Amino acid sequence: MKFNLNFNDIPDNYLFAEVADRVAAYTKAHPDKKVLKLGIGDVTLPLAKEVIKALHAAVDEMGSAATFKGYGPYEGYEFLRSAIKDYYAETGVELALNEIFVSDGAKSDLGNILDIFSQDNTVLVPDPVYPVYVDTNAMAGRKVLFASATEQNNFLPMPDYSVKADIIYICSPNNPTGAAYSKAQLKEWVDYANKSGAVILYDAAYESFIEEKSAVKSIFSIDGARTCAIEFCSFSKTAGFTGTRCGYTVIPRELEKDGMNANRTWLRRQSTKFNGVPYIVQRGAAAVFTPQGRKETEQNIAYYKNNAKLISDCMDELGIWYTGGKNSPYIWLKCPNGMKSWEFFDYLLNEAQVVGTPGAGFGANGEGYFRLTAFGSSEVTKEAVSRIKNLLKK
Amino acid sequence: MKFNLNFNDIPDNYLFAEVADRVAAYTKAHPDKKVLKLGIGDVTLPLAKEVIKALHAAVDEMGSAATFKGYGPYEGYEFLRSAIKDYYAETGVELALNEIFVSDGAKSDLGNILDIFSQDNTVLVPDPVYPVYVDTNAMAGRKVLFASATEQNNFLPMPDYSVKADIIYICSPNNPTGAAYSKAQLKEWVDYANKSGAVILYDAAYESFIEEKSAVKSIFSIDGARTCAIEFCSFSKTAGFTGTRCGYTVIPRELEKDGMNANRTWLRRQSTKFNGVPYIVQRGAAAVFTPQGRKETEQNIAYYKNNAKLISDCMDELGIWYTGGKNSPYIWLKCPNGMKSWEFFDYLLNEAQVVGTPGAGFGANGEGYFRLTAFGSSEVTKEAVSRIKNLLKK
Repeated sequence: MKFNLNFNDIPDNYLFAEVADRVAAYTKAHPDKKVLKLGIGDVTLPLAKEVIKALHAAVDEMGSAATFKGYGPYEGYEFLRSAIKDYYAETGVELALNEIFVSDGAKSDLGNILDIFSQDNTVLVPDPVYPVYVDTNAMAGRKVLFASATEQNNFLPMPDYSVKADIIYICSPNNPTGAAYSKAQLKEWVDYANKSGAVILYDAAYESFIEEKSAVKSIFSIDGARTCAIEFCSFSKTAGFTGTRCGYTVIPRELEKDGMNANRTWLRRQSTKFNGVPYIVQRGAAAVFTPQGRKETEQNIAYYKNNAKLISDCMDELGIWYTGGKNSPYIWLKCPNGMKSWEFFDYLLNEAQVVGTPGAGFGANGEGYFRLTAFGSSEVTKEAVSRIKNLLKK
Repeated sequence: MKFNLNFNDIPDNYLFAEVADRVAAYTKAHPDKKVLKLGIGDVTLPLAKEVIKALHAAVDEMGSAATFKGYGPYEGYEFLRSAIKDYYAETGVELALNEIFVSDGAKSDLGNILDIFSQDNTVLVPDPVYPVYVDTNAMAGRKVLFASATEQNNFLPMPDYSVKADIIYICSPNNPTGAAYSKAQLKEWVDYANKSGAVILYDAAYESFIEEKSAVKSIFSIDGARTCAIEFCSFSKTAGFTGTRCGYTVIPRELEKDGMNANRTWLRRQSTKFNGVPYIVQRGAAAVFTPQGRKETEQNIAYYKNNAKLISDCMDELGIWYTGGKNSPYIWLKCPNGMKSWEFFDYLLNEAQVVGTPGAGFGANGEGYFRLTAFGSSEVTKEAVSRIKNLLKK
């Protein structure tokens, strides 16, 4: 037996482990100090009451022979796919039911989708980036190129026709930078992909945080996207499903090449390597789209966005350059006084007992930047913001 | 972009679609006739009351900020892994907690585990076989060899030292044949794997149906297995989780080669391409191991095994050769009067309105054989058995 030696080439990323270690060391040395964490990307609000109600009802169904559900459809139950279809229709995006695949999360499918593509593809990912894009391709031995995201392009890199890429990752609103592409900018990426025969893997996990009309919720609102794009969505940040696990992937029927069809090939992959998402969880996810479910989840998103505003207002007041906050739960700021990412991390931890995430951990271009998240409680966010103000006003 | 052209080499398997088509055609032509289905591999009894109780309690936890669970550990919560560890200890198999990985089902991990192995491995699967073993490797472009399972070896093929295989699939009790290896037989496979540096992917999804002391519940009860085997288990058939999705994979720390460790490599794979099983589902799975949960799930298994006995007793009475039934929910029988698999399927459907699964659908060696399952209701099974008796007694 031979192991997959590509695993040896996966870049080690100790980002969050290193953050945890430094926080632990500080807390041990200063047991009296209260440390506030704005570093995590996990949600803190409980599931919406309407979702809880639906989960309980589904559990009861599983307890009676008459309503018990065994194996479900690989692509997900129609009741959930119809609700997703209607959600897209609200913004003018018409999908067929068989273009929607329920998943156990955007992260899983962003990795699993690579099964349907040859190893012999060149991958283009932005830098800084969510590490999963790079790691999943490194595992498969694919060549990875980086699109440089910098302050100059507001961390929204645009197509470079001199670069030949086959698989292009776009995350908008972006993790970690919070930057969101406009319709016009995404149109340029779609045209580039169609011209060069590339596929865009569009990570829309944060679409529900978008408020600006100009920003795009679905890449399928862009003309030409149906021949070049696959979209990955998640209930994790929209409805607090990080521990409940549900998402969906949209693959238009027009995405074809070499006599193969992406939609049919993915269904074949799923029917062979996946057995669907728990019925109970799919019922909970469907409840997110009911009027009451929408109302409650939107309140939760408003709560997080209010935290984001507290943080971005603070940056405005301090005159610190940043992206995100507006259409995103992330605020990506430039470390003050030319500090490096880890330098600012230590400074903030030692002087204000506030924990964030060093931008350098997301890629070379992240050096000198820092990520704060809006997923904490409003109380913690308020106190952290005032501590940051007092520290950096000096 | 280039698709993965290996998908074109996946053998088409229309088995269950073809079964459904023929049944639909018959029902349309004979709306008056009551068709009894003993073909499905899905369970029919609801989840145990103790599991339902645990699921409800977990749903409530997700509804309150104080007890809400976000991202969980990639390898599963310790409360579930400890319960699994204790379950193994009952049969004298000692595992470390970090050797147990909670999954969303044996099928998923049986396919996903291939990520950690090079494409350049030769795979050995029994024929007849659960199609997923072949299809997942065909997708990755691996060479697949078959170990011939026949009436002569009681559908339990043994190692052939003239065959060089790197990855060996063993499913015991077997799907579709229901045959289960003895300790002595599995010891031969373990020795073969260790001598040839191969890995055994051991599918133990049906272990809870084992009653004979000589049959093996876990391959880790065999000396030497810790250096050559990975075990895949599931709550699907044990506790009726086919639509609730939970299983577990055991990777001993001693499984190493080329300076790589299977256990660590799998954790790296999971942390990159998976975000764990829903907290709610893990709580439900843990309840299966409580005294009351054990009692209830064992009652369900006894119910199915009683169905299996009805079927095997009928075969004994008719003098029809078969495997399975005893340690398995499947009865694999030799079609009477030298009929071919589909011939017998049509005969049984037309003359007795009983539906089973043609063995030919599971591989070349399945031709002339037929699978009946014990997962139906006891009423349906009783009536089907008496119809089969009346038809074949003639």
